[in-house]
Order: sequence, then C-alpha cells, then structure tokens
Amino acid sequence: MAIQFELIKTCKQSGARLGRLHTPHGVIDTPIFMPVGTQATVKAMTPEELEDMEAQIILSNTYHLFLRPGHELVEKAGGLHKFMNWKHPILTDSGGFQVFSLGDLRKITEEGVEFRSHLDGAKHFLSPERAIEIENALGADIIMAFDECAPYPADKEYVKKSLERTTRWAARCKAAHKKPEQQALFGIVQGGMYPDLRKQSAEEITEIGFPGYAIGGLSVGEPKPMMYEVLEQTIPYLPEDKPRYLMGVGSPDDLLEGVLRGVDMFDCVLPTRIARNGTAMTSVGKVVIKNAKHFDDFTPLDPNCDCYTCRNYTKAYLRHLYKADEILSSRLMSYHNLYFLIELMKNVRKAIMEDRLLDFKDEFFEKYGYTVKESE
Amino acid sequence: MAIQFELIKTCKQSGARLGRLHTPHGVIDTPIFMPVGTQATVKAMTPEELEDMEAQIILSNTYHLFLRPGHELVEKAGGLHKFMNWKHPILTDSGGFQVFSLGDLRKITEEGVEFRSHLDGAKHFLSPERAIEIENALGADIIMAFDECAPYPADKEYVKKSLERTTRWAARCKAAHKKPEQQALFGIVQGGMYPDLRKQSAEEITEIGFPGYAIGGLSVGEPKPMMYEVLEQTIPYLPEDKPRYLMGVGSPDDLLEGVLRGVDMFDCVLPTRIARNGTAMTSVGKVVIKNAKHFDDFTPLDPNCDCYTCRNYTKAYLRHLYKADEILSSRLMSYHNLYFLIELMKNVRKAIMEDRLLDFKDEFFEKYGYTVKESE
Ligand SMILES: [Zn+2]
Ligand SMILES: [Zn+2]
Repeated sequence: MAIQFELIKTCKQSGARLGRLHTPHGVIDTPIFMPVGTQATVKAMTPEELEDMEAQIILSNTYHLFLRPGHELVEKAGGLHKFMNWKHPILTDSGGFQVFSLGDLRKITEEGVEFRSHLDGAKHFLSPERAIEIENALGADIIMAFDECAPYPADKEYVKKSLERTTRWAARCKAAHKKPEQQALFGIVQGGMYPDLRKQSAEEITEIGFPGYAIGGLSVGEPKPMMYEVLEQTIPYLPEDKPRYLMGVGSPDDLLEGVLRGVDMFDCVLPTRIARNGTAMTSVGKVVIKNAKHFDDFTPLDPNCDCYTCRNYTKAYLRHLYKADEILSSRLMSYHNLYFLIELMKNVRKAIMEDRLLDFKDEFFEKYGYTVKESE
Repeated sequence: MAIQFELIKTCKQSGARLGRLHTPHGVIDTPIFMPVGTQATVKAMTPEELEDMEAQIILSNTYHLFLRPGHELVEKAGGLHKFMNWKHPILTDSGGFQVFSLGDLRKITEEGVEFRSHLDGAKHFLSPERAIEIENALGADIIMAFDECAPYPADKEYVKKSLERTTRWAARCKAAHKKPEQQALFGIVQGGMYPDLRKQSAEEITEIGFPGYAIGGLSVGEPKPMMYEVLEQTIPYLPEDKPRYLMGVGSPDDLLEGVLRGVDMFDCVLPTRIARNGTAMTSVGKVVIKNAKHFDDFTPLDPNCDCYTCRNYTKAYLRHLYKADEILSSRLMSYHNLYFLIELMKNVRKAIMEDRLLDFKDEFFEKYGYTVKESE
C-alpha cells in the first residue's frame, strides 16, 4: 500500500476528525488544504515559498500536464516531483473534471471521452486506462480515478447513468493501476444533488475498494446549504478508516463546514486566483486591494497575519503594485492567501485536538464576517 | 555631501577603474550594474532575492512614480526605501528620458516640458525644479538632473541647442536641490554623437559641479562602435575623482566596453525584460528558452552558473513554464539574468584588482560568443 491513514482523534465537541496520512514523500496532517499547481507550478510561487508557509501537499492537473508538456516528458524528467522540484507529497486529479469543463466538442462513450484541447483544438481521447497510464507516468503520491463530474443542475436520469458509468470506470482504473505500492488511487463518489444517488455511488465505489475516497461533483454552482446537505448524505457511507477528500473546495467557510462533516482533504484554485485578481482573504474579512481606501493605508494586509507579505509590505504598496500590474503583486497576494488557508487549517487541527472546533468556528466567523465566493 | 567616491585602483593592463561609493544607505563597489525597478519594484523580484544575488543598488523611475502612485504618497510612506522595503542604496532618474520617450504630445520650452501621461492622457508639466522636488520626495541616495535626451539621429544644430538647454536645466536642478546632504545630485552630459558637442556639454556640466556625472543620450539606437567612440570622446572631460554613470546600458559586451573606457555605473531593463520574453544571458551565449531543442534538455540554463534558478531547475522545466505562460517563468529567468550581470561585474572588479581585465574580456567573450541586442 502506498499510503497509510492514521485517525488520531475525533473532536468531542464537533465530531471532526484529526488524522495523519503517510505517503511515499512524507506525512500529511489532516484536515488539510492542498494548494493547486495546475501546470506543475503553484502559480507565482516557488517550492521553497510553499515549504516556508508549511504547505504539506500540492495538487497538479493531469489534463493540463497531458496536453503540455506531455506526461512522457515529465516521466523522462524522473516524475513530477523532480520535474518541478517539489520534494513533498503530490496529488494528481484524473483529468476528468477538466475534460468536461474545458475540453471542446467532447463525445462520451462507455470507452471514454473524445475531446479537443482548449489550447490548440487537437483531438484527444481519455479513458480510465489512459488517465491512469498518464497518472502513473506523472508519479504523484495520490492519484484520482477517471470520473464524470455531472453538471449542476442535471436531471436525475442523467446523473444516475453518469454515476454508474463512473463506477464502471473506477473499477477499470483500479485494474489499470500499475503502481499501487507507490501511488494510492482514490475512488470518486458522484451522484449530483440526489441523496439516493450519492448513497448508491458511495456504496458502489467503496465496494470496489480504494485507499481513499473523494467526493466529486460539489462546488459546481449549487447553493452552499445544498453542498453541505449532500456532504451529510454522502459521508456516512464512506469508511471511517480511509481519508476523505472534498474536491475543488477552498473558501474558509466551506473548509470549516467540510471539516465539521468529516472531510480530511481539500483543494482549490481560489486563494491563488483571487490573489492575482487583487483580493485577499484576511482574518477580518475580504480585502479588495485596488479599492481607493487603501491608497494611503500603511498597515499590513491582515493585522493578525505574520506571513512574509504582512510582515514586510503595506496595503498602500500592495495597491500600487496591483494597479501597476506588477508580478510582485501576484506573488505577495498569493503568498498571503495560501498562508492564510494553511494557517486556518493548522488552527482547525489544534481546535480538534482541544475538542473545541465549534467554538473555534464561531470565533473565526465573528472576526471574518463574510463569505468568499468562487466567482470573485 | 551625501556620497563619497573612493578610487581604489586602476587596472594596469586596461586602465579600468575600481572604486567604492559611500552612500547614506551603504557602500557600493564599482564598476557596478544597477537592476532597474521602474515602478518601485524590480520586475518579478523581491528585495530579499535582490539581496541574495548581491545587488547593491537599484534604480527607480521618477516619471513612473510621479504618475503612479504619486511622489506625495511615497514621501508619506517614509520615502522610496520604506515604501518598497529596500534597505540599500537607490538611484532615481529625473523623468527626462521617459517624458521624451513615453510622454505624448510633449511641448518643450525653456521652462520645462508639458506632456500627456502614457497611462491616461492627463496633462502634466515637468521642469528642472519640479523633477528635483519629486526626487527629493522619493528620497533616493542618488538623484539625476532633469535633461533632454536628444533622439538618434538628430541634426547637430538641434543637439547643440538641446545640450545647452540641458546645461541651463542642470544649473537650475542644482539650485533647486533641497537635500544635498542626504541625496547626491548627478549632472548629465549630452551632445548626441558629435564629439565637439560632447566636449562642450562635459565642460559645461562639470563647470557647474556635481558629486557624480552621467553620460546620457547613448544606447538610443546608434551602432555600438559609435557608442564606444562617443564614450572615448566624453570621459576624458570628466573629473577622475567622481563616479561616472553610463545610463541605459546593460548588455554584457557594453558593460565590459564601458568599464574599459572608465565607466563606474550602469543600469538597464535589458536583463529583466528579455527574461520575461524567455531569453537568458549565459556564460556560453544566449539561450532562447522556447526553442524546441530545449524540450527535453534536463541540464541547467547555464552550466557555469550557481544561481537559484540554475541550481534547482532544468531547461525543460523552464521551457514548460514559459510556454505555459506561468509567472514562475518570469521569476526564474529574471533571477538568473540579474545574477549573471551582477556576477559578471564581480568578476570584472576582481580582474581589475588583478590587473588583467583585457585577458578577462577575451576569456569571457570566447565562451560567450555573441551580443545581446536591446531589441530582443
Ligand atoms: Zn499575510
Ligand atoms: Zn543561473
């Protein structure tokens, strides 16, 4: 087995889980937020900066690396860790999500998906076997099964057919996986917003058996209360002793709500994307750096943050960099936002250890006082 | 006096100068290359990275900072050093060059220059007094007189009138300078490509008297041999005991040729600009990272460089980052190019100390074997 999941304790106040995930490239403390390095780089950051902010695992995207530079090159480089100079754990998705959201003119059959590259229009084919072949070549510590992420909204009949195909694809992924001792393959539960379909998917996927389980098809445009409800209807069908990964979720409120419902792992482009657009998540709420009120504000981005950005720069300077379209703006804002989420998850783990996650949540949101939306 | 220039020795083989320039924010070893931080940031770099590569002084642009965020804000922040978090010496130009190259619809009178901002078309006026007022507010260690940089080519009559106005403006700059004890004001010699006009300008400017002298109006499109000739016709008219600064020059060959002709200071956007366009200066010549031959080249950018980029990344990865339009590409390439020029100047200083700069030049160019052009 590539990984071992250790459940350390459950918060007496909230039921949230504290764990430790042992992988070939090191141990991860859960619950954890995983920064996203779409194209073999976490945008604007170096590996040393990620280490400095204590990121323990990053995610990279099979779809993007398959198209450019190609998984054969990454394999020839000695795998993704060596290619991008990141010595710690990596998780790769399967490309399924991107094929359905970015690929043009896709044609889905039982065999797999034919699509055109969003880069140059070239025709490609991804199947469970092909996705696993690519992920085996990339060499991440955790790899994901090739699934279909149904859109939201979608009618029940379509979602049912789609989840059942995802189940068959999951079995094919497991059969195709060549390196179970080096890479842990996670199954993905689908089922849209339908409780009975979520149950069906969870039972089918766990029946196949994987070292970890992801919940896919959430944070795709549905209202937040609906996402939390679906989580509650899905997680009870997942085994206690395996890590649970909620895909594509990264706003502070969703992280907390996810942890409270038993999720161990999260990833999202949100912190780096909004950073490049000049928005910071801070302990006292959202800061839109371009706003005129920051023009001569010589205080740090977040008064309660001790990250590199907050220790060394003022809002006035950050606003100037943003308005002047300087690369340093993306660097400093990205650093802060990632640090903020990593710090949040550290505090979440501490609160679980101390059996006070519900109190922590109340304290956090009282200061925070808002919700960051994906669209920002 | 804000600065003190110490002439340490002259290379017995070449006549090149080795010096030390004492400024309010530290000592600079000359000859030196100064990275350019146009908008209060050296593009894609942090101050710590500049320290790490042993940059001793950086340049920033009055024209840009005047337009955005405004010198009043920088002054309110405690000056440019505090605003951008750079603790070492800074030099600001006067804005003259940018008014003439970037400003629209400029109208030159004896009083100064009326121009429209390249950002929003707003009308502004810069005069010697106004430029010095702005530079006093920015608070750099070395500030430049407000001059007119005549275009190339330009007829002799125009260049003569222009240089004589630049002389009158230089005297007004000196009179307007409010902080001679904190900031050293350098005069600028103009005169186009005309030897007698260069002599006239040098004599007039040194007659006014400044703690340092710049040679302006070169590297503006003229052939390199012509630039070297003009340098030879200008430098003899500058005092031995004051630093000499050749403005806007930064290709390795021009740095060496400049040092051999008695120049102490250089600045140029070249290393960072070509870096963002994917071109590296290396000890074995120019590397255009997007070229197909680097696709699976797992060697460093420069086999003889021990910079952060070359110690940690391969050409294959750098090519991927460039093709994928990742910010890390600009970061890593900029770091290397700046490091390369700073390292080159370190080696130049060492060669002067050892009385072997001509030998060093031959050795360097034998490996280097090419010339980087501004237009790249
Ligand atoms: Zn911060
Ligand atoms: Zn290097």
